[in-house]
Amino acid sequence: MLAEFSIIPIGVGSSIGDQLAIALKIVDESGMPYKVNPMGTVVEGEWDNIMNLIKQCRDEVMKKGDRVIISITIDDRKGKQNRIEEKVASVEKRIGKILKK
Amino acid sequence: MLAEFSIIPIGVGSSIGDQLAIALKIVDESGMPYKVNPMGTVVEGEWDNIMNLIKQCRDEVMKKGDRVIISITIDDRKGKQNRIEEKVASVEKRIGKILKK
Amino acid sequence: MLAEFSIIPIGVGSSIGDQLAIALKIVDESGMPYKVNPMGTVVEGEWDNIMNLIKQCRDEVMKKGDRVIISITIDDRKGKQNRIEEKVASVEKRIGKILKK
Amino acid sequence: MLAEFSIIPIGVGSSIGDQLAIALKIVDESGMPYKVNPMGTVVEGEWDNIMNLIKQCRDEVMKKGDRVIISITIDDRKGKQNRIEEKVASVEKRIGKILKK
Repeated sequence: MLAEFSIIPIGVGSSIGDQLAIALKIVDESGMPYKVNPMGTVVEGEWDNIMNLIKQCRDEVMKKGDRVIISITIDDRKGKQNRIEEKVASVEKRIGKILKK
Repeated sequence: MLAEFSIIPIGVGSSIGDQLAIALKIVDESGMPYKVNPMGTVVEGEWDNIMNLIKQCRDEVMKKGDRVIISITIDDRKGKQNRIEEKVASVEKRIGKILKK
Repeated sequence: MLAEFSIIPIGVGSSIGDQLAIALKIVDESGMPYKVNPMGTVVEGEWDNIMNLIKQCRDEVMKKGDRVIISITIDDRKGKQNRIEEKVASVEKRIGKILKK
Repeated sequence: MLAEFSIIPIGVGSSIGDQLAIALKIVDESGMPYKVNPMGTVVEGEWDNIMNLIKQCRDEVMKKGDRVIISITIDDRKGKQNRIEEKVASVEKRIGKILKK
């Protein structure tokens, strides 16, 4: 299962880099396959592992504020592995070109 | 914690009403406070209860297809209850008008 | 075309009701069909009208802050009208029950 | 303004790689700064340019199907440029480590 999530603390000022660093440190140390991008972080794994990871990030970020908006988008497909690499690669194959990542 | 979620089965044709009915029956029978709208369903509860509800919907919908896209948006705010009613009401108070719901 | 959008001002404190009221006043006075819910507002119309409406809300909200997160989800389906009412009604028909809205 | 978008054609089978290739070819040839990831594509630019790009992708994808779900998330912040690179770099600086991208 692929999931992209983002965590937006509300009420801690317009710069939220410190809180994002807290969350991404947790993701990086989790051992789960992940790819960060300017709008969120994509992870791959089982439902419970992914939701526990995001909950852990929520708990840490909420220690420094009282409101958070979390967005999670899931692409769950039977019988496919390593989609965190294969999904973009299969589109690049169709286009015949390496895309900017 | 407030959460809105939508479940979109992929590969079962452009009409997905049957699958949405499966999911909404589960939500309706869950006993959790919910409000359905044309683009998703808002529920209120604790993290684990909400995620288990959505996982249950995913499992049922995936019995009839092999791919699903799930979107979850969470608004988690300390010290506030019954936001499934209060959040819109507080905006209506500010505008001085009942909005279309 | 159906679209749900939400506007979250960042850096103006954890209460964002004043800014949501600004946006919803614009939507209410736009004349477009809409339904507000605790997590966003669903509108129905053509692409340009919907995007201009959301841009107008963004411009007004950004007069009182320097950062905003906007989420837009679109369900665009050929040959269907009044889906802002019909989409939920068709699921209720399948379940045989009026759902909480 | 940063925006991430994804386009999901409904009713064309569970493999949507061909349609994603159509959309990403348009993005790649647009000249706008972009980064693709397994769950969407992040672009940077002005509101109208970004919305016209996404509309163009929608129009092309809808030539081969009758329903599409589009998700757009916008992070609009005054006075900041090149956030498509700087946003992740600023978090990496805080963590003191290059993250997987």
